[in-house]
Amino acid sequence: MNPKIERLIKQFARLPRLGSRAASRIVLALLQDKTGRAENLANALLDAVATIRPCPNCGVLTDVDGGLCEFCRDPSRANGQLCIVRDLSDVWTLEKSAVFHGRYHILGGLLSGVAGTMPTDLNIENLSDRIKNENIHEIIFALPNTVEGKTTQHYVMSVISATPDVRFSELASGVPLGGDLDYLDDGTLSLAFDGRRGL
Amino acid sequence: MNPKIERLIKQFARLPRLGSRAASRIVLALLQDKTGRAENLANALLDAVATIRPCPNCGVLTDVDGGLCEFCRDPSRANGQLCIVRDLSDVWTLEKSAVFHGRYHILGGLLSGVAGTMPTDLNIENLSDRIKNENIHEIIFALPNTVEGKTTQHYVMSVISATPDVRFSELASGVPLGGDLDYLDDGTLSLAFDGRRGL
Repeated sequence: MNPKIERLIKQFARLPRLGSRAASRIVLALLQDKTGRAENLANALLDAVATIRPCPNCGVLTDVDGGLCEFCRDPSRANGQLCIVRDLSDVWTLEKSAVFHGRYHILGGLLSGVAGTMPTDLNIENLSDRIKNENIHEIIFALPNTVEGKTTQHYVMSVISATPDVRFSELASGVPLGGDLDYLDDGTLSLAFDGRRGL
Repeated sequence: MNPKIERLIKQFARLPRLGSRAASRIVLALLQDKTGRAENLANALLDAVATIRPCPNCGVLTDVDGGLCEFCRDPSRANGQLCIVRDLSDVWTLEKSAVFHGRYHILGGLLSGVAGTMPTDLNIENLSDRIKNENIHEIIFALPNTVEGKTTQHYVMSVISATPDVRFSELASGVPLGGDLDYLDDGTLSLAFDGRRGL
């Protein structure tokens, strides 16, 4: 194989969700395309990398130069609710479902011995200031329902617990919509029983 | 979502084997990476698009400026065998298995009423010249075992059938290695019976 093409395939294969076979197909499609798709993609990527930065307030990626992101600038979002998530893709998921209308705060990771993520790696330095400045009265943890997620949630709560008049909440655990008991794991079933609601 | 990021995700989602979810993860990984991976990928892509061209002889993509590809320049490949394939990924597959040591010829597609591929879209103009100039004595069709593949094969044969002293062959059809009869389709079984070998 031509070494230049081989290098390009290797670079694509290192992207998440791609293996060498998918990367080959992508590179082949890009190199054989005659509509300028490859140049457009490369230039859009260079432009994005040069201009997209995390919002200094919440961590959401934005291209507003040195300023706050769309969420932090939107006064209609200042409803006193702050949703703490792991990363930007969680924000996108929540926005698509349109269940939350407050502000976000991206941790940028979860505490994990395996991945070596330490408390200092979490984006929580300005969290107490945000609670004061933005009149936050409820903090909603929307972290993964895993050991790392819960550990991180407890740690973040311990850091900001001194803040008065703030309610903490987390997403409910239980049987998913359309979920068949047959296919549920024991952990979810146990959480669903513990959290059963009176009728 | 930030419009610049959204546009970039849409561009990635249009690549083969990628959907919008995988594209989101890829864009997020690239934008959050701090090792310059996104710039390197974009620049490698721009460089490849600017320098990679199909070999004028066989159609294999190469970055040798205006010249022949690695296969056509390699004298050890001039063994009189020419393997006709649909596209470059088939060349890569055959090269990985190391079963063929001759030269290739890429058609660039298969005749197809559905896809609208006409005889004039096939890269066969110089095929007769190649047979003469490169002393080809065997042409091996390694096209997909489908209606389109077989139709294309018959068409290409009719075009070059006037060439004397050239044997034509195609890949064998039958039960794949490790294949269980239980899981074989009727078409393959029928081909395997028709092509049964005496012992």
